[in-house]
Amino acid sequence: MRFLIEADRLKTVLRGSRISDGSRRENTAEHSWHLTLFAMTISEWASEPVDVLRVVQMLILHDLVEIECGDTPLHDTALSKTQAEREKLAADRIFGLLPADQRTWMRALWEEFEAAATADARFAKSIDRLQPVLLNHLVGGGTWRDYNVDEDRERAATRLIADGAPDLWTVAERVFEEAVRKGWLRSTRSDAAPT
Amino acid sequence: MRFLIEADRLKTVLRGSRISDGSRRENTAEHSWHLTLFAMTISEWASEPVDVLRVVQMLILHDLVEIECGDTPLHDTALSKTQAEREKLAADRIFGLLPADQRTWMRALWEEFEAAATADARFAKSIDRLQPVLLNHLVGGGTWRDYNVDEDRERAATRLIADGAPDLWTVAERVFEEAVRKGWLRSTRSDAAPT
Repeated sequence: MRFLIEADRLKTVLRGSRISDGSRRENTAEHSWHLTLFAMTISEWASEPVDVLRVVQMLILHDLVEIECGDTPLHDTALSKTQAEREKLAADRIFGLLPADQRTWMRALWEEFEAAATADARFAKSIDRLQPVLLNHLVGGGTWRDYNVDEDRERAATRLIADGAPDLWTVAERVFEEAVRKGWLRSTRSDAAPT
Repeated sequence: MRFLIEADRLKTVLRGSRISDGSRRENTAEHSWHLTLFAMTISEWASEPVDVLRVVQMLILHDLVEIECGDTPLHDTALSKTQAEREKLAADRIFGLLPADQRTWMRALWEEFEAAATADARFAKSIDRLQPVLLNHLVGGGTWRDYNVDEDRERAATRLIADGAPDLWTVAERVFEEAVRKGWLRSTRSDAAPT
């Protein structure tokens, strides 16, 4: 129960992304819920067969460490440098609230997600990267404009989508192209540069 | 994708409960996430063996109809009367955004939850009833005070906890007793009535 009460705090962790009506920033708890619905709906798009229960469980847990660390925006390079170390300490404390057997398997599932070393984790990462792309598209730029992101940087930051689900990468590419046309993502093509 | 984008609106549906720091009301998307974490953590407390994947999936989906209907507070008797009919129409539209095969199984899973006719659904209902009890406790009364609820009415409204998980009912009973002592729930015992 202490773990479940502590987890409630994830509802107060704000992300960079806005929710689809643009009214406010998304919190990490509702973000995690949204991702689980993606996993239930589009698991057949995974590049390799996946165990939907494991993917869903990973996504439920994947950001619990943000209770301690807050969200680290994909495009905040300074914060990203220390992210892994800070999150490891947070995992020690948060999963440490659980009885030993649960602590072991939930921690292992979180580390599997972080390492992206299995098909389940790679698909979970794909979803985690795709969802903010869709939200940015729905709100007319979102964090791309906040951080003045160019298309190459965005493709590099979300390349994990392609690892877990090439068909989702096709969706993302279409979104990026439209975002460049609309000026939400800066273009890096020389033929599109102003003269 | 249309279904997943539509689902984002659940983040704007407000419930009666407050989040644990009391700062604001909970929305249905983050509520749903919190319940899935309960299911992962305390499934061994279920009165019968349950399939955790099915319970988690039910909890992810169980309140999607609120995109159309809004939340119906447990203690709002007027709204509760028309709830089933309104939610059925909402389910027609929302699950109707899905391809046929997914529409069929997700709709069936939602109806299974609503009917509470299987062990998985009964356990999911237990969790759905227990979580607001804990939040009310953490914020010092919450919806019990908002609706001037007495202990008998609260026990009747949350009796589904006992159906799916008798040990969770023991937890709830302890919370109710403390809530009566603290004046967050009105007492109905004659020996405690003011003279």
